[in-house]
Amino acid sequence: MSQVWSAPVRFVECDMQGIVFNAHYLVWADEALTPWWVERGVDWRRFGAEGYQYVVVSSTLDWSSSARHGETVAVDAELEKLGRTSLTVRFEIRVGERLCCTVRTTYVCLTGGAPSPWPDDLRAALAG
Amino acid sequence: MSQVWSAPVRFVECDMQGIVFNAHYLVWADEALTPWWVERGVDWRRFGAEGYQYVVVSSTLDWSSSARHGETVAVDAELEKLGRTSLTVRFEIRVGERLCCTVRTTYVCLTGGAPSPWPDDLRAALAG
Amino acid sequence: MSQVWSAPVRFVECDMQGIVFNAHYLVWADEALTPWWVERGVDWRRFGAEGYQYVVVSSTLDWSSSARHGETVAVDAELEKLGRTSLTVRFEIRVGERLCCTVRTTYVCLTGGAPSPWPDDLRAALAG
Amino acid sequence: MSQVWSAPVRFVECDMQGIVFNAHYLVWADEALTPWWVERGVDWRRFGAEGYQYVVVSSTLDWSSSARHGETVAVDAELEKLGRTSLTVRFEIRVGERLCCTVRTTYVCLTGGAPSPWPDDLRAALAG
Repeated sequence: MSQVWSAPVRFVECDMQGIVFNAHYLVWADEALTPWWVERGVDWRRFGAEGYQYVVVSSTLDWSSSARHGETVAVDAELEKLGRTSLTVRFEIRVGERLCCTVRTTYVCLTGGAPSPWPDDLRAALAG
Repeated sequence: MSQVWSAPVRFVECDMQGIVFNAHYLVWADEALTPWWVERGVDWRRFGAEGYQYVVVSSTLDWSSSARHGETVAVDAELEKLGRTSLTVRFEIRVGERLCCTVRTTYVCLTGGAPSPWPDDLRAALAG
Repeated sequence: MSQVWSAPVRFVECDMQGIVFNAHYLVWADEALTPWWVERGVDWRRFGAEGYQYVVVSSTLDWSSSARHGETVAVDAELEKLGRTSLTVRFEIRVGERLCCTVRTTYVCLTGGAPSPWPDDLRAALAG
Repeated sequence: MSQVWSAPVRFVECDMQGIVFNAHYLVWADEALTPWWVERGVDWRRFGAEGYQYVVVSSTLDWSSSARHGETVAVDAELEKLGRTSLTVRFEIRVGERLCCTVRTTYVCLTGGAPSPWPDDLRAALAG
């Protein structure tokens, strides 16, 4: 599992309880996906040009602690499961060594608006 | 299951794909919780004064369609599971009859920072 | 001046100081613009089809008090100044009778990406 | 004028027009204020402990171009005007050499909830 994204917690992300509001963990996981594709050698500009796209179909979030203002969050990402047309990525959001939230998001590959097998090159890159 | 919250989709909630960005569904479910407590006769001002609070420990989101600008989203909420110290609420977010996203969020009751059984009155109100 | 938009303050809009974070006032003013066009009889679907669009070039915000969770904000809007290619709208954001923030936003009309006089029908509708 | 803050544009910050939504420029200026205090040697932890705080009373935003996804924004900050109880900071938000937005925000010093002269040490640090 490798760190693909990091940012200081923003003041606007903290709520009246003094902790990061839950929805922002989804924003951070979303931001972490693009550098994860890049790190794995997956070139979405090319796949996009060939008519592929992907959509989120589900996400689960499990919190073990809260991130706070003044802290920097980091996101590690890892392939959790690669199906024929779906893909689940696990994101671990932490402050230093302390785990805050594990996000698992499942994406489905589409061509022409319908579920489609992932392109072979993408499958090869992720299997690498 | 009953509708507890509704709002027009805001321009700022829509992304470059022309659909609502995924994190906003968590915001809407969160907004729907307070009127759901009220509807079930649960008075958190009183429980708060008695030293109870609750925190989110997990959320799952399953999307079946996208909400868009120009549409109005409505949230139905229902008790999914009541444990000794935990509680899961199911939120169905829809546009008219069309389901967009089902959110299931699990809360844990705390007193003095530690998990605690829900107060009997809250349990009675939810069982009602 | 007439009320064109209203919404309860959301939990996510409040910061660690217990008040609405300043950027959300711009979101609310932006949301209020569309119903204001409608109220004045300005049909942007038609103008858009004719190749007109508009962009924000400046905004000023003056706060006199803070909105808080549990309150409902309302936005009144009024034409402040109509120029040849520009337009300034004044938004007053309040909680009940209490004024929270006055937002003045200036828009410029564009056709083909360049500043352009507003269409005569729009000018007539606003002058009405 | 010196750069005090920078971040890649986030996907969630971009709207259906493919550009950053206007309210996010206020978020970035707000984030830039804290490192600007630090750079000028102003220690708000100390002033806060002495009973001082500050609130935003006005902001003006002037856009000259749009930031977009894939770009990195940087914020330069500079003292624009130091009054007895107020302070205006100018933030220039740019992508590389290209200016996107100038934000001018005026803060007022408070003690016990009422406007108050800035502490002498803060005044000295800013004059430095």
